[in-house]
Amino acid sequence: MNPRALAPLRRIVGSEHVLAPVPAPYLQDATAARGIRGEAAAAVRPADAEQVAAVVRHCYAEGIAIVPRGGGSGLAGGAVPAGGELVLSLERLQRVRALEPERWRMHVEAGVRTATVQRLARENGCWYPPDPGAGEQSHIGGNIATNAGGPHAFKYGVTRAWVTGVEAVLAPGELVRLGGPVRKDASGYDLRGLLIGSEGTLGVVTAAWLRLIPAPPAAAALAACYADPAQGARALVDALGSGVVPAVLEFLDAGALAAAGPAFPLPLPGETRFLVLAEVDGGPEQVERERAELAEALDAPALRVHAFVTESERRALWRWRDGVSLAVSAQRGGKLSEDIVVPVEHLGEAIAATVEIGERHGLPACSWGHGGDGNVHATFMLDPSCAAERERAEHAAGEVFARALALGGAVSGEHGLGLVKRGWLRRQWPEAAVAAHEAVKRALDPKGLFNPGKKLP
Amino acid sequence: MNPRALAPLRRIVGSEHVLAPVPAPYLQDATAARGIRGEAAAAVRPADAEQVAAVVRHCYAEGIAIVPRGGGSGLAGGAVPAGGELVLSLERLQRVRALEPERWRMHVEAGVRTATVQRLARENGCWYPPDPGAGEQSHIGGNIATNAGGPHAFKYGVTRAWVTGVEAVLAPGELVRLGGPVRKDASGYDLRGLLIGSEGTLGVVTAAWLRLIPAPPAAAALAACYADPAQGARALVDALGSGVVPAVLEFLDAGALAAAGPAFPLPLPGETRFLVLAEVDGGPEQVERERAELAEALDAPALRVHAFVTESERRALWRWRDGVSLAVSAQRGGKLSEDIVVPVEHLGEAIAATVEIGERHGLPACSWGHGGDGNVHATFMLDPSCAAERERAEHAAGEVFARALALGGAVSGEHGLGLVKRGWLRRQWPEAAVAAHEAVKRALDPKGLFNPGKKLP
Repeated sequence: MNPRALAPLRRIVGSEHVLAPVPAPYLQDATAARGIRGEAAAAVRPADAEQVAAVVRHCYAEGIAIVPRGGGSGLAGGAVPAGGELVLSLERLQRVRALEPERWRMHVEAGVRTATVQRLARENGCWYPPDPGAGEQSHIGGNIATNAGGPHAFKYGVTRAWVTGVEAVLAPGELVRLGGPVRKDASGYDLRGLLIGSEGTLGVVTAAWLRLIPAPPAAAALAACYADPAQGARALVDALGSGVVPAVLEFLDAGALAAAGPAFPLPLPGETRFLVLAEVDGGPEQVERERAELAEALDAPALRVHAFVTESERRALWRWRDGVSLAVSAQRGGKLSEDIVVPVEHLGEAIAATVEIGERHGLPACSWGHGGDGNVHATFMLDPSCAAERERAEHAAGEVFARALALGGAVSGEHGLGLVKRGWLRRQWPEAAVAAHEAVKRALDPKGLFNPGKKLP
Repeated sequence: MNPRALAPLRRIVGSEHVLAPVPAPYLQDATAARGIRGEAAAAVRPADAEQVAAVVRHCYAEGIAIVPRGGGSGLAGGAVPAGGELVLSLERLQRVRALEPERWRMHVEAGVRTATVQRLARENGCWYPPDPGAGEQSHIGGNIATNAGGPHAFKYGVTRAWVTGVEAVLAPGELVRLGGPVRKDASGYDLRGLLIGSEGTLGVVTAAWLRLIPAPPAAAALAACYADPAQGARALVDALGSGVVPAVLEFLDAGALAAAGPAFPLPLPGETRFLVLAEVDGGPEQVERERAELAEALDAPALRVHAFVTESERRALWRWRDGVSLAVSAQRGGKLSEDIVVPVEHLGEAIAATVEIGERHGLPACSWGHGGDGNVHATFMLDPSCAAERERAEHAAGEVFARALALGGAVSGEHGLGLVKRGWLRRQWPEAAVAAHEAVKRALDPKGLFNPGKKLP
């Protein structure tokens, strides 16, 4: 983009919000930890949805590619520009347009942080269940772009289940509303749902109508310790037969425990090589009964089952769980972490395969994640300064993806494909389905200017 | 279609499964009650998904339009052929390909009845929550085509929330799998969700992977009677502030009660002009506590709040509720019933508007429906043999749609647009969103052969 091309953008958003050269933070996301950095011609920070539409209109007319950007916590490089694009940061779209706890809903702009949404809901007696790992950093717009999940997605579903409408700028620069505050709509195609998880490749989400629910009055957590990882994974899966619907059903394998276990809020039995974390929620009596039932279901081959009953105990547990990713990173300074999904009965195989693949590539490996959803954060620990390790880790990740597909699973449950996995769409989906993806992309982005090179092959 | 054109279809599905002339039942759905009947060149009944693909391949090559058909319980004419098309009935695709209650899932072909899915889940300790009104007749494929809801959609969500994958035949005749048994997938666009609710206009669904959950151990229902409809509607909406998450939150207005009230399982106070029905579910203690809390929330302006605590009491209540539509039809022999949605705080206005619009058109009107979702079955009772009444009812329905839109709502929450409401896509959605609908339709059905004339303008 030549410097003169920036003048129209300056007129739209104001000179101080057109950044060229582009500051480094706008060129990367959480994949920086594996050495991924991008290049861009400029970055713009529109103030509101109308300015976003004006920017897109200008870019669409001039053939300028756009990389929408949220909080920059993505793990697939979805917000990393390849070079030459315009980074379109939604960070200034921070208005809470409506907060109506008594109607179980909220209307927020794309740049509102996930943690802010959660806090506003909580302070008003409600709850917004999606809880992706980087909620303090991520924006609701980015959560929508990737259809973010988190531990509570097991019972409550991913972001798509909590967004009744999106406001978005579609090609060639039209601000439209797809859905809204109503809880049901059978009138059109589910364009709302299509944009959710599309990683900025079909349009730019500027705001969302979120569904809330009253916060459950009580909750309790369990941690079940196992000496044998295969037995632990089987216990988790068998617990689905207990009749209880846990709110959360997580696991950590031996490698993840080696990294994070020392900080666990209680002493773990020394032989622990697999941990299942579960939570039940609801009325206090139900929580007590379900905690007992679930503890019994998890207990058979367990070394011990801890209960976390008080609010402060539970908080300590989930704070610890939030730190797992960092603790694993700290082992060797860096990591490559993917988020495959398998049918839940194959959970144990996916966990074992991760370790075995790491061994073959000379990399310590571990996994943890949303076991009830079969969603495994398969992770290779590495020294980020070592190019050879990074390369081995990429190969290892490829094998993990292939194994997930062989087990009938998917290459991503939460992170999306972004830049780093886009070749895998073709590996996972049958040819006719890939063609359908391409047809939808052409239909909504005929010039291919929305986040080019992401998601699609 | 000339008779010779049927030969290739006979080779695919067998002569006995190509019906020409087409028997009347294949030319209508539940809109027959308002006088809508179609015409078709032939009907075919393929035995399995491969035969569906072969039929679509043949039709796509020859330019023959296809009307997919499920159980024929649709209320928008989505399965009614306009003339000249081929009716593609999925009725023989009845296999339950997998039933895995211990993994909370089921894999069924499109022609399996909703009631069969519900029964199989129940018999195995699980539950499939979507409960559209005509479950004994409707097929799961039709439920997917319209994204069917029902009373329990309030807490548990509509069909889209319970389908993790669809198998479908896309143009020009490719059998593909979009999603599957895994509970999360962030790898592609949500083509699964896009097909759900697309009313057969983007492809033909041949099978689905359904998510189940363990059946809640207990439930209890409430019926709150009000003398003043506006007060009743307000009580329903205010109950959202009680902190309880009801599984069901329904209403019936005075006209619906006049028709169905006499069969109510208990005597209703004579002054009752509005009824709220609610259900809570969960563990027995939670059910008891939430029933009391919800009863208190509903009680303030109520004449009486009945509780339905035993299983047989609850069954009697919901059996009665299932019969409301028929009881209303019986008033004058026929009805025109639509299913608008409004933001829940406008529920009372939508209910009052229906009666007022009916009065202006000289038609007795009433409504009932899924109040918590703002989903109102706005209904005009008519003599189906009277063309003038039918015409007045169509005009009245148009006013109801316009009112729903003026209140920030949608013209359909459950039934879809089908044939009878397709002009309303353009009225509800902004121009750019209509263009996006058309672009998606062209992308996935370039020849426009899937259920032409339905849904889109």
